[in-house]
Amino acid sequence: MSAPRSLEALIDALRKLPGVGTRSASRMAMHLLQHDRSGAEVLARALQQAAASVRHCSRCYTFTEQEVCDTCLDTTRDATRLCVVETPADQLAMERTGAFQGLYFVLMGRLSPLDGIGPREIGLHKLMDRACDGIVQEVILATSFTAEGEATAHVLSEALKTRGLRVTRLARGVPVGSEIEYVDLGTIAHALADRR
Amino acid sequence: MSAPRSLEALIDALRKLPGVGTRSASRMAMHLLQHDRSGAEVLARALQQAAASVRHCSRCYTFTEQEVCDTCLDTTRDATRLCVVETPADQLAMERTGAFQGLYFVLMGRLSPLDGIGPREIGLHKLMDRACDGIVQEVILATSFTAEGEATAHVLSEALKTRGLRVTRLARGVPVGSEIEYVDLGTIAHALADRR
Repeated sequence: MSAPRSLEALIDALRKLPGVGTRSASRMAMHLLQHDRSGAEVLARALQQAAASVRHCSRCYTFTEQEVCDTCLDTTRDATRLCVVETPADQLAMERTGAFQGLYFVLMGRLSPLDGIGPREIGLHKLMDRACDGIVQEVILATSFTAEGEATAHVLSEALKTRGLRVTRLARGVPVGSEIEYVDLGTIAHALADRR
Repeated sequence: MSAPRSLEALIDALRKLPGVGTRSASRMAMHLLQHDRSGAEVLARALQQAAASVRHCSRCYTFTEQEVCDTCLDTTRDATRLCVVETPADQLAMERTGAFQGLYFVLMGRLSPLDGIGPREIGLHKLMDRACDGIVQEVILATSFTAEGEATAHVLSEALKTRGLRVTRLARGVPVGSEIEYVDLGTIAHALADRR
């Protein structure tokens, strides 16, 4: 005895999603078939729709349904500042702060030599072309403060500086709302060195 | 600035899956669009195929693509024994043991009064009809050994006994491979009471 073929195929397809193992995939499939068949239809159409219409912005490389995304087309933004982020989610977080009025470049990843992701894969050339358009004056590196994010920032910084651009990095320091006692020592040391 | 509309729709649809929150849904959507568009197509087709072709067996209520499932149609099986399980996954686990040659009835749930799942929702009437076909002599209750599974077994047992059927329950006891020291006390007490 085994599960019906189309149920097996569904479990297999769900298992390819990041963070989903055989058990979760099986649970998802059972749930959809038992309790939410219309949800299965909605998900199927959403997948097809997104796969067909979502593309990369030709200027900043973020996800968009247009040739150039709304942010890049927005002439009220400060085109002299370019913020480099790893993902569209990071870009969204920056936007939610309301503290940045410039434009973006989305790497869609970060350097990770062990996974075969080098400067070419994160689009270093595209970034260089974009940053050297004659309008951008400052590039703000907002990659993650992890080992890979820091390495990415370092490589980008070296490359961009050779073109005479001003390159800055988000400040490291104590997060808002933190009690000093519970902040990790590396962060306190950085906050002390960068005190103002 | 916000994500493209079709990307938002995809994240919304993924978030409806059990165990998936906004962050996982977003991660899944980004992964599919960035690294696995063919996977998105495969998943969409698998969803539509399964939703269209998977139905319940008219005899045991498990998932199947036929009117009656292969297990119920298998004349080599012992039709005098009927094993009641909560889900097709439980049925598959029973089958994998190779220790049961009878037929099944799949409740597709368990009693959960707080969630509004009563005897009607788990198909008590269907089970009574199935068990009283004149061929079944013993009903083996293999619902979970949780509070809800035990309550389900109790209700089914009471109902089935009034029809003169022999009703048994999987044995409670120490799992194979366990060291007594690490087995919970309730299990040891049950294993002691049911010693043989």
